[in-house]
Amino acid sequence: MREVAEEANVSIATVSLVVNDKKNARIGKEARRRVNEAIEKLGYRPNALAKSLVSGSSRFIGLVADAIATTPFAGQIIHGAQDEAWKHGYVLLVANTEGDPEVTDDAINMMVDHQAIGILYSTWYHREIERPAALGSTPTVFVNCYTNEASETAVVPDEEQGGYTATSLLTRKGHQRIAFLNSTEDAPSTVGRLAGYRRALADAGLPFDPSLVLDVTPEQEGGYRATTGVLDRADRPTAVFCYNDRVAMGLYDGVKERGLRIPNDLAVVGFDDQEVIAAHLRPTLTSVALPQYELGVRGVRALLAALDGDPHPGVQRITCPPALRHSI
Amino acid sequence: MREVAEEANVSIATVSLVVNDKKNARIGKEARRRVNEAIEKLGYRPNALAKSLVSGSSRFIGLVADAIATTPFAGQIIHGAQDEAWKHGYVLLVANTEGDPEVTDDAINMMVDHQAIGILYSTWYHREIERPAALGSTPTVFVNCYTNEASETAVVPDEEQGGYTATSLLTRKGHQRIAFLNSTEDAPSTVGRLAGYRRALADAGLPFDPSLVLDVTPEQEGGYRATTGVLDRADRPTAVFCYNDRVAMGLYDGVKERGLRIPNDLAVVGFDDQEVIAAHLRPTLTSVALPQYELGVRGVRALLAALDGDPHPGVQRITCPPALRHSI
Repeated sequence: MREVAEEANVSIATVSLVVNDKKNARIGKEARRRVNEAIEKLGYRPNALAKSLVSGSSRFIGLVADAIATTPFAGQIIHGAQDEAWKHGYVLLVANTEGDPEVTDDAINMMVDHQAIGILYSTWYHREIERPAALGSTPTVFVNCYTNEASETAVVPDEEQGGYTATSLLTRKGHQRIAFLNSTEDAPSTVGRLAGYRRALADAGLPFDPSLVLDVTPEQEGGYRATTGVLDRADRPTAVFCYNDRVAMGLYDGVKERGLRIPNDLAVVGFDDQEVIAAHLRPTLTSVALPQYELGVRGVRALLAALDGDPHPGVQRITCPPALRHSI
Repeated sequence: MREVAEEANVSIATVSLVVNDKKNARIGKEARRRVNEAIEKLGYRPNALAKSLVSGSSRFIGLVADAIATTPFAGQIIHGAQDEAWKHGYVLLVANTEGDPEVTDDAINMMVDHQAIGILYSTWYHREIERPAALGSTPTVFVNCYTNEASETAVVPDEEQGGYTATSLLTRKGHQRIAFLNSTEDAPSTVGRLAGYRRALADAGLPFDPSLVLDVTPEQEGGYRATTGVLDRADRPTAVFCYNDRVAMGLYDGVKERGLRIPNDLAVVGFDDQEVIAAHLRPTLTSVALPQYELGVRGVRALLAALDGDPHPGVQRITCPPALRHSI
C-alpha cells in the first residue's frame, strides 16, 4: 500500500479506501484512477483472502450438490449458479457429496469455515429433503429440492406446468386418447406431471381415463416393456406422454419392432430434453425441458435477495419450456 | 486462543501450535488432546481464511473446466478430483468457463487471488491446447488435455490402448473382418484409437483393410448414415468398432431397420461407456470406458507430486477399461 501510495501520490488511507472498494468514500475520480494505475503498474494483485478477512465476509457462495457426477443435469445447475454468482462478484465453491451424510456435513462445514455468504443446497432430482443439521443458521436456498418448513426458500421446476405443457402439445394436435407413462417413483415429478396431464385433458374437454396411466421404471427398459400396455388394447391411444426421454427411447424400440411408425401411428412426447438423447432419436423427440440452468441462476438470486432481507421466502416454481421436434 | 488456553490449562503458544497444525512442534499428546477438547467444548471453529493468510498458502486446489455443463463426462473429472483433494485435506475451487478465453482468465485469476496451491486445467474432450497466459507460473496439471511443452504435466486417457482393447474384444470372438467407424474430427482420440485398432488387428494376424475404416460425424446421425457403407458390400464385415456409443446407437437403428440382429448378424463395440446410453440400448452395448473419474484423481496426485518437487513431469496415460455387455 505504501508503494502504491507513493507511486500514485496519494495517502495510504486513500489507497486502502480504493482497494477495499468503499464505494461511498469521498475520493475524487482522479485519485481513484491514479491508485488503480499505480496498482497495475506495480503489478500488485489483491489478496482475496486478506480482503475477506478484513471485511468479515468472503465473496464465496457455496454450492453443495448430491451428484454432479452421476447426471448431466447437475452440471447445468452449477453453470447457471456460477454465471449469476460471477455477475454479482461472487465465486462459487462447489462440493459434490454423492448423497453421503458425512461428506455433506464436511462440505457444509468447509463452506462455513471459508465464510461463504450462504449456501445453495441442491439435489440431482427434484424431491423433499430434511434440512441438514450442519447448515445451522447459514443462509440457505434449496435448489431442485425443498423442506417442509414454510420459512425456507426453495427453487424447483414447475412439474405441474411441465406435465400440462407436454399434454397440451398433443391435445392441440387433435389427439383425444393420450396415454401417460408415469414413473413408479414417489416424487414431486410424478405427482406434479400427472396433475398437469389431468388439467390439460380437462382444458381440452377430454375425459380422464385412469387405465391410460401406466407406471413404469423411468428408464429405457420401462418404456420398452410398456409397449404392450400401450398398444395391445381395443381402444388404443394415438399419443403417449412419457415421464422422461429415456422412457420414450425404450418405447420407440418397442413401437418400431412392431413395424409401427412415430408419429404417424403413435405420437410421443418426452420430458427432460435430455442431452445426447432427445435431439438424436429417430424421429427426433419432442420434449419438455427441465430448467436446470435457470434453477441455478434463480437460486443465486434468491440467496442474494434473502441476504438483502427479502421478506418473501417460500418455494419458487420455474417454468419447464417445450422443445419441439418431430415425434408428434 | 486465550479462552482455549485457560480451559485446557496450557499456554497460548501451545494452543497456537496445535490449531496451526505444526506437526513437528514438540507438544505432548496429552496437551494436544486437552486443547482439542477445549476447542470442541467452547464451540470454536477454525477460521480457514485466517489460517490460510497466516500460513501463506491456502487449502485450495483450483479446477478450471471448459464445460461442466454440456457433457456428463466433466462431472466425473470433478468427482474424482474432489475425492482425492479431500483425502489430502484440500478443497476444490471449481470454475466453468464454457471455453470463453476471458472467463478462463477470470477463473484462473480468481484462483490465484485465493492462493490456490495449484490448478487443474481440464477440457471436456481430449485435445492439445495452448497454456493459457493467465496461468503464469502457477503450478498446473492439464487434465484430459496437454500442451506441446515437454516440461508440462498432463493426465490423459490412453486412446491407443482403448482402441486396442475395443478391437481385441472382437478379434478374440473370432471376427476377422472388423470395420471401424472413426470420427471425422482431428483429435488425439481419432488418431489414438485408429492406431490401437491397427495394432490389435496385427496382433491377431489380420490384415489392415483401409476400406473398412469409415469416418463419420461422432453422433447418432453419423452412425445411422454409415449403415450403408458397412453393410452394402460383398465382403461385409461381421463386426464394427464405433468411435463412440452415440455412433453405435445410430448404427443400431440402421441395422434394425434392415431386419438384421445384433450381435448375431453384426457385433458392435462402442466407446465412452456413456451414462444413460450404453447400458440401456437393445441389446446392451459393450463399450470401453473413458477413465474420467481416474483422470481427476490422478490430476490431483500429479499436482501434489509436482509441488513436492516430482522430477518427472510429462504426459501420464490412463487406462480405458472395457465394459462388457451383450452386443458382441
